[in-house]
Amino acid sequence: MQALKERIAREGRNLGKGILKVDSFLNHQVDAPLMLDVGQEMARRFADRGVSKVLTAEISGIAPALTTALALGVPVIYARKAKPITMPAHVYCETAPSHTKGKMVELLVSPEFLGPTDRVLIVDDFLASGQTIQALARVVEQSGAKLVGIGAVIEKSFEGGRELLTPLGVPIESLVVITAMNDGQITMKDG
Amino acid sequence: MQALKERIAREGRNLGKGILKVDSFLNHQVDAPLMLDVGQEMARRFADRGVSKVLTAEISGIAPALTTALALGVPVIYARKAKPITMPAHVYCETAPSHTKGKMVELLVSPEFLGPTDRVLIVDDFLASGQTIQALARVVEQSGAKLVGIGAVIEKSFEGGRELLTPLGVPIESLVVITAMNDGQITMKDG
Repeated sequence: MQALKERIAREGRNLGKGILKVDSFLNHQVDAPLMLDVGQEMARRFADRGVSKVLTAEISGIAPALTTALALGVPVIYARKAKPITMPAHVYCETAPSHTKGKMVELLVSPEFLGPTDRVLIVDDFLASGQTIQALARVVEQSGAKLVGIGAVIEKSFEGGRELLTPLGVPIESLVVITAMNDGQITMKDG
Repeated sequence: MQALKERIAREGRNLGKGILKVDSFLNHQVDAPLMLDVGQEMARRFADRGVSKVLTAEISGIAPALTTALALGVPVIYARKAKPITMPAHVYCETAPSHTKGKMVELLVSPEFLGPTDRVLIVDDFLASGQTIQALARVVEQSGAKLVGIGAVIEKSFEGGRELLTPLGVPIESLVVITAMNDGQITMKDG
């Protein structure tokens, strides 16, 4: 996705240790029109998968997952990391290590909104180690729903996430693939 | 906003102590097309305010703030409650009590994205006690930006938020006003 690549090239900053600063348009300030394009491109790539729900993890997955859901005309669910008082006693719960928090985080989804008739597309801002998305896939499995695809806005291909998720047997799409982050550089895959 | 009122009437549940469960369409599962309508209505109400940025607080403010920003064609910023490693050392920081967490939470915004030339519309899912929105207004003030409006998807008028925020001197709009939550009922204002 060319507009996104150009934006990363212009505003993205490599802070070292694989940390990419893109908070001017993706995960603190959000460029709303760009995010709409991201959702439309994501929806185009999964148009033939019969998606009934988009699933993401709070916080920074919400924006691209919502615009993808908008383009597909389906609801989006964001897994909560802390249980709100509005959530029932029994919930689907999986854990994943948080890169930025340095600890395990829970991912909670209410069984009210995900069940055996659903066909689920997982969308997140980043595909890095793949562990958050893998935990979301386990939530889908717990619910009896069918996982039909995985979409990420930005993939860091050198962190092994795609290899971790490939055994799930569903299409994995990333709008931009970063192949290396060495010496302060950000190297993106062509095309 | 009639569609939203009908949705609250059909799916909203009064869990007692002023707690409204609307997580089937607003703050866990999100009805994406409804949220687009919410954003368009919000944008219509603030169309003459010259908004340059929409500001909200993570987590459940993100969806309606994003669709409002989409309709206005401006960026949205969500204040973070924990400081990501991508945020600079100096940030705007205010605190507000969290109704659901029972403790104070921080609201952090990077000075990179909010400054004296900005005209800011604050959008949140709920206007209840008004304390989160008041803290966001203090962030706007810290940044030197001008607050030009406050929009909430649902106002609980019996919790005093509007009275708290009125001294800010900007238009306050709510798409649905709940006037009472007694005996398991949800009473909404007409029109």
